Amino acid sequence: MALDLKKLDGIGWQENGQAVLSGMALAMLRRLDRLFLLWAGECGAEEYRFPTFIEAGQLHKLDYFRSFPHLVTFPVALDTSPEHLKEFSRSAVIDEAGVVQLGKCAPVREVLTPAACYHFYVLFQGTELKTARNLTTVATCFRREAYYRPLERQWNFTMREIVRIGAAEEVKDFLADYRARIERFLSDIGLPVAWENATDPFFDPSRNPKFLAQKLEPVKTEMVFGGALAIGSINFHRNFFGETFDMRRNGEAAFSGCVAFGVERWLYAFLSRFGPDERSWPSVLRSHGIAGDLANDK
Amino acid sequence: MALDLKKLDGIGWQENGQAVLSGMALAMLRRLDRLFLLWAGECGAEEYRFPTFIEAGQLHKLDYFRSFPHLVTFPVALDTSPEHLKEFSRSAVIDEAGVVQLGKCAPVREVLTPAACYHFYVLFQGTELKTARNLTTVATCFRREAYYRPLERQWNFTMREIVRIGAAEEVKDFLADYRARIERFLSDIGLPVAWENATDPFFDPSRNPKFLAQKLEPVKTEMVFGGALAIGSINFHRNFFGETFDMRRNGEAAFSGCVAFGVERWLYAFLSRFGPDERSWPSVLRSHGIAGDLANDK
Repeated sequence: MALDLKKLDGIGWQENGQAVLSGMALAMLRRLDRLFLLWAGECGAEEYRFPTFIEAGQLHKLDYFRSFPHLVTFPVALDTSPEHLKEFSRSAVIDEAGVVQLGKCAPVREVLTPAACYHFYVLFQGTELKTARNLTTVATCFRREAYYRPLERQWNFTMREIVRIGAAEEVKDFLADYRARIERFLSDIGLPVAWENATDPFFDPSRNPKFLAQKLEPVKTEMVFGGALAIGSINFHRNFFGETFDMRRNGEAAFSGCVAFGVERWLYAFLSRFGPDERSWPSVLRSHGIAGDLANDK
Repeated sequence: MALDLKKLDGIGWQENGQAVLSGMALAMLRRLDRLFLLWAGECGAEEYRFPTFIEAGQLHKLDYFRSFPHLVTFPVALDTSPEHLKEFSRSAVIDEAGVVQLGKCAPVREVLTPAACYHFYVLFQGTELKTARNLTTVATCFRREAYYRPLERQWNFTMREIVRIGAAEEVKDFLADYRARIERFLSDIGLPVAWENATDPFFDPSRNPKFLAQKLEPVKTEMVFGGALAIGSINFHRNFFGETFDMRRNGEAAFSGCVAFGVERWLYAFLSRFGPDERSWPSVLRSHGIAGDLANDK
């Protein structure tokens, strides 16, 4: 049964690919992220809060613009010369279709964060790690898509990540532990999720050696709800970020891996599976702290 | 005594005007926002979570681009034609100064949220309010500035707002109540804050009738910490948003007002006044839930 989000209290949809949340939907979203944060705490992950922008020069080191030019959004300010600002402020800047003509712009050096964990590799760039580091962050992430749907596919969405940077075995153990933990949870609550090998959504994939490498040796496993929607993923980056950002562990390029949760998609999966009213959700969800008195939740 | 933020644990500063928070600084920021949310709860404010972008066409109704062209940041994606994306992905897109050459861009219809409460006037556009509405939201806001400083002046910062939309007297009472509540709190904890009439930071102010109107009849009162830093403000919009967005109360254009908190600036004020280590903060802060065992706070 398809979920009619337009009839759900607390979810407002905008034609520009973004959602407004309030009431029970907002409370549920927070509870889900609190659950992920609890899981992050189980490995003692340190939490960070990063800015909305990330330096284009850092993403360029990852060959990001070659791989994902179709997804990227840039923050752009106007040229600061008083003449241009006067001209902009005087002229009619918006047309009937709601489009702004920017005219001359200031140099663009930033990107709107496309994935939460990139910030960590930039932060720990050029460091020798004495122990493996467990980290977590939640970020609003931005991906321009060909179409949008409430909660399922948004221009802005919320991503919680749990990350380990360390030696190869340390990272593999971490990812295996979290996979087992999440599998137990999903089976416990009865949310139908299949684990599927996947590749990142490269631009022009057949010409991209990174895509071909991912096809040969899968490094991304998605948690696929209802046969179609990836609500999270477990990613083994090998030593790709360690080499690119010169992070070392035991004298060698560090390995890294992350567990990523698309928080709005988890909300969608819960609403689809358990219904729009959390008061009728199974008691097992209460025992995990995800249901029960959400109306009064802050 | 000036606060050296570069020596403070948990605050990382980026040259692009943005901060990375972790540890105690992140825990303090959360506690401050929890306090504001508690205050919002005292008038039963409904909480909303808005997207990062707001439609340019809506801000245009406020004459925003004429008043604040120097502050605005736009989210810009590349032109979607496969030819342009191929060209962009193939060519060297970043120069030595870290600047990206975007080439052809997709039409720009959005703005990065400049102030949290605008979203409410768009949301309740064209409605007749049966009672005054009390609302709250926290948002990452974006203002391009001539210079940046950690916590004090950032390109991205966190703004919590408590808003009332209603009849003139309803809004005046609301603002007076909150001013009294905040004054009591500040006096109770001993944070030196002066209330000062202010104007919004208009572009080319002497030519802007809105600026002149604000000079004649002040509608913005700032909470100024240490003689220089506005950590919050109380704003009486009269029926400006009610008229612009056709919100009505008792058959007339609704009035509105907001109480706004710059969350990073509050953090700065607390660190400056009470010192970098919350374990030595006065016990009155503990009784308000702002200090005490922050290290274990999630």
